[in-house]
Amino acid sequence: MKCKVTFYPAMKEVEVPAGTLLKEAIDLAGLDFDFPCGGRGKCGKCRVRVVKGRMEPSEADKTHLDEKEIADGLRLACAAAVEEDVGVELLEVRGHKILIATTERRIDLDPHVQKHCLKAPPPTLEDQRPDWNRLQAVLEEAGGSKDLRISLRALRALPEALRAGGFTCTAVTAGEEVMGIEKGDTTSTLLGIAFDIGTTTVVGYLLDLLTGKVLAVASALNPQTKYGADVISRITYATQEKDGLERLHRAVIEVLNELIEKAASEAKCRKEDVYAASVVGNSCMHHLFLGLNPKHIALSPYVPVTGMEQVVAASELGIEINEAGVIYVLPNIAGFVGADTVGVILATEMDKSEEIKLAIDIGTNGEIVLGTKDRLLACSAAAGPAFEGAQISCGMRGTKGAIDHVEFGEEFSYTTIDGERPKGICGSGLIDAVAGMLKVGIIDYRGRILPPEALVGTPAESFASRVVEQDGGRAFLLAAEDEAADGRPLYITQQDVRELQLAKGAIATGVAVLLDRYGIAPEDVSEVLLAGAFGNYLDRHSACAIGLIPSVLEDRVRPVGNAAGTGAITALLSKGEYRRAARIAASVEYVELGSYPRFMELFGASMSFPTAAPAKA
Amino acid sequence: MKCKVTFYPAMKEVEVPAGTLLKEAIDLAGLDFDFPCGGRGKCGKCRVRVVKGRMEPSEADKTHLDEKEIADGLRLACAAAVEEDVGVELLEVRGHKILIATTERRIDLDPHVQKHCLKAPPPTLEDQRPDWNRLQAVLEEAGGSKDLRISLRALRALPEALRAGGFTCTAVTAGEEVMGIEKGDTTSTLLGIAFDIGTTTVVGYLLDLLTGKVLAVASALNPQTKYGADVISRITYATQEKDGLERLHRAVIEVLNELIEKAASEAKCRKEDVYAASVVGNSCMHHLFLGLNPKHIALSPYVPVTGMEQVVAASELGIEINEAGVIYVLPNIAGFVGADTVGVILATEMDKSEEIKLAIDIGTNGEIVLGTKDRLLACSAAAGPAFEGAQISCGMRGTKGAIDHVEFGEEFSYTTIDGERPKGICGSGLIDAVAGMLKVGIIDYRGRILPPEALVGTPAESFASRVVEQDGGRAFLLAAEDEAADGRPLYITQQDVRELQLAKGAIATGVAVLLDRYGIAPEDVSEVLLAGAFGNYLDRHSACAIGLIPSVLEDRVRPVGNAAGTGAITALLSKGEYRRAARIAASVEYVELGSYPRFMELFGASMSFPTAAPAKA
Repeated sequence: MKCKVTFYPAMKEVEVPAGTLLKEAIDLAGLDFDFPCGGRGKCGKCRVRVVKGRMEPSEADKTHLDEKEIADGLRLACAAAVEEDVGVELLEVRGHKILIATTERRIDLDPHVQKHCLKAPPPTLEDQRPDWNRLQAVLEEAGGSKDLRISLRALRALPEALRAGGFTCTAVTAGEEVMGIEKGDTTSTLLGIAFDIGTTTVVGYLLDLLTGKVLAVASALNPQTKYGADVISRITYATQEKDGLERLHRAVIEVLNELIEKAASEAKCRKEDVYAASVVGNSCMHHLFLGLNPKHIALSPYVPVTGMEQVVAASELGIEINEAGVIYVLPNIAGFVGADTVGVILATEMDKSEEIKLAIDIGTNGEIVLGTKDRLLACSAAAGPAFEGAQISCGMRGTKGAIDHVEFGEEFSYTTIDGERPKGICGSGLIDAVAGMLKVGIIDYRGRILPPEALVGTPAESFASRVVEQDGGRAFLLAAEDEAADGRPLYITQQDVRELQLAKGAIATGVAVLLDRYGIAPEDVSEVLLAGAFGNYLDRHSACAIGLIPSVLEDRVRPVGNAAGTGAITALLSKGEYRRAARIAASVEYVELGSYPRFMELFGASMSFPTAAPAKA
Repeated sequence: MKCKVTFYPAMKEVEVPAGTLLKEAIDLAGLDFDFPCGGRGKCGKCRVRVVKGRMEPSEADKTHLDEKEIADGLRLACAAAVEEDVGVELLEVRGHKILIATTERRIDLDPHVQKHCLKAPPPTLEDQRPDWNRLQAVLEEAGGSKDLRISLRALRALPEALRAGGFTCTAVTAGEEVMGIEKGDTTSTLLGIAFDIGTTTVVGYLLDLLTGKVLAVASALNPQTKYGADVISRITYATQEKDGLERLHRAVIEVLNELIEKAASEAKCRKEDVYAASVVGNSCMHHLFLGLNPKHIALSPYVPVTGMEQVVAASELGIEINEAGVIYVLPNIAGFVGADTVGVILATEMDKSEEIKLAIDIGTNGEIVLGTKDRLLACSAAAGPAFEGAQISCGMRGTKGAIDHVEFGEEFSYTTIDGERPKGICGSGLIDAVAGMLKVGIIDYRGRILPPEALVGTPAESFASRVVEQDGGRAFLLAAEDEAADGRPLYITQQDVRELQLAKGAIATGVAVLLDRYGIAPEDVSEVLLAGAFGNYLDRHSACAIGLIPSVLEDRVRPVGNAAGTGAITALLSKGEYRRAARIAASVEYVELGSYPRFMELFGASMSFPTAAPAKA
């Protein structure tokens, strides 16, 4: 028996014999999905959610997932067998270090660009109407606006397209304008591409605008990285180097063109059939994409050039889709709360929620949104790069060989990405490690690593030998020289703990300020949505243990994948959703942390770890 | 005493001492006005109309003008003395062989582009609105639309313009879009340029959009001439030569850019202050300007690509006004009735007339319009180039040395342009000559030049010696070898008369077809409007004598100058007038002469001359 497997959100379909492992079906579909332990059922990372049909839980599922997760349809792809037609949501696509949205939403397809096949009567001496007047009359009969205009480009193509197709042609419209003319009936093909421009990674989702299906996903490193790793250094480059802005602008345009090429080639499509694109990114990425000077984002009072949606001709920016193509850029909220956050709100529908939700997009700048359909607050917390492994003695990005998970069980243990020998530690591993050290008591609530002798007779006694004194102070041994990939031991130093405290303290302060401004307590929040790659890999228990997220909310944490990208897709598939993005940007109340009255007080409180209540001095 | 002289339609003003000749005032104003006889009061050509104040008629006026003309305010500029503040309309500006409109109309200034000076509050930590949101709020307060957009170009200029001007800036808007941002308050300057693209001559009128004044007029030969003298040869070039269309397109864009440069330099203005342009031209010029393939204009059923108004970014066409500038192209009516005819109707307001009017724009193609506000008919008559001197044995354009006026008085006499020795004959001279030959009886109503012996005893007897037999047949001597500029005698040959018959017959047929279709007789027409250069120089009595215009209408003929150009000016100064142009193009009923049922019959009747009723054979 053949079974059909549909993968969301990519909407790819494959048929496999009953009994096939989902892992093999994923391979067959050509999807880029990561099996960290090589598919041996050991790491518990290759999670998927069954959204259509049934799949029996495997032994690996029972080991790595709890009952609620299994009941929610979660499975490990490496061990689950397909026995009937199923729909499966891929929760992590890690090969490119990108995430596809984890939530599926029904969107009413109503794309910005549309196609209309038109049959016009040929001209005669009795009917000498000009080509465009003739076509407009047919369009009007078909329900088009009387005020429909035509672009010069389309007008130039019109006479030959009409005659080559025997006076049947396809008009491509955007709003009140005919932007393109194709000969014959081409209404069966209409593509778009949604871009999520991250500071580090740029992703493009090639979409069939007629079905809403994702045809291909392409990603690449943001080439602006060579001019500066974070937004502040890029703004500095843009404003202080000669042609800096132009160089950064060209760099992102070029990489988007590469993604278009890649995605079109993967999906076996023609770039000329792509008539629309949407773009999200943080305010700085947004500005550099549009060639807007980001200078004032970085200078008090930190204002971006625009907080409105912007529609731009692809040709004006040199984006190599159809030369008549149009780009729909989502709006920013503030200098440090950009269109990516609008995308997150759009995708998670926080702006429609009756219940109070909290969304956190953790990165160098953590964007935080809190509220309901009636009121949404947002802020940006300068977490610094600790979560990305920077400024941590053995820190690294979440790539091969990074310690990504740590456990203080009977023994100290860890896993690494791809199961390689450890090269360093990434953000999720660091949070696990510090959470574990807190739990067993190696660190006190102030963040101090205790001396080995202080651990005697405590639950930490068995790990005491890992605490060493170094030049710069105390440190905790993660991997000895014989374990580590390059033969040098890996430590978490006192300084590393301080960096993490600063980073988590910044996010926690942001959350605290928004709760304070909203006038609610943490427990009033019904759900915590973790957006972005990091939020997805993060162990929610550890995150709560170090106080990154209020502990009372531990069971309400839900990773939502690349919600910003999903927002871009949503806004491309539906004019109404794009308008909603504009309304979101206009209505979200931005809170400037630095000038918030209780900021210092809340920041002080957020720096400590929440393990124990501080004893009064 | 100083007197102020205002020249219309250029709206230039100069002050001169009382007693100054108008000729000197024209020189002082730097206007390009032609004095064919050198200002000696001999040719009677330098006509002006006094529209404000009074000027005594001079002796020269009494010689060259009739009483009604003098009563109507007509004067010869070479002889009229300024004795008080006057307003004077220049009826001919001939240096560049262009004509400025002879009718003055009040237009409600409401240009397509507008400027708004905006003072925004600077951003603070308490008011972090993005630059564009901030500005939009001020625009909205000032009555701007809520849906106002901003172009990417303007957005890029915004942050620096705002800050350089202390948050006072000037927004340049076109419709719902902010197209430009200038720092500080620049609302005192806003320019536009109206183009009339003729097959032979291209004219640009630089306008102050805030006052409606013409600041400068520049003209040049249409450089497309080197690819073909008439529209058909250009269409052939565009469709059959490699890159032919592109070459013709670039040629006209380049000459328009030269006109912008010239006009701006003459008026001491900056090209960047020119934010809008309008364009009229025949359908072929219209297509070549926009880069549209004119192929199907020349092929049955002769349809243009568009009959709608078209708004195009200046940057898309490479027109070097402000890079954000917008071009408003007037619509065509049909393949051979173009935007220039729409301009004529717009300028003469035929579409508002209660009485039936007939407009004729004589050229290689004569465009004819007939009707009232309730119904307008138009056609194009293929007159051929005879009126422009081509295909006439000694024919030439209306330039220096051309015989432009002929009289059969007691003796045969003629004048030439600029009073030089005759080099040939131009259209107006040819019509005069043939009309005179008809009057005295040298030619019969069929167009046959009679043999000298047949003239004995008739009024033509004294001219009989000028009729000679040549190789190709009979001919009439205009200028003997000792008079002619290059020592070769100038004749009007039998063949020349036939060419003129064809040309005038084509126009007359067009008029007859429109009258027939309208169901009226010639005498029902209240006014005949002669548009364009040729129409202005034409002697209306001669035109009626040869049957170019129905004789009953001789007293109702009025030259209206370059009405097409005036139409372009009008459409640039007022959005409402531009919309009116669109309504005109949509409502005028185009009559295809070739397929008109009674065409052959009417054409046959129009070929003969009307001098005498034909004797029944």
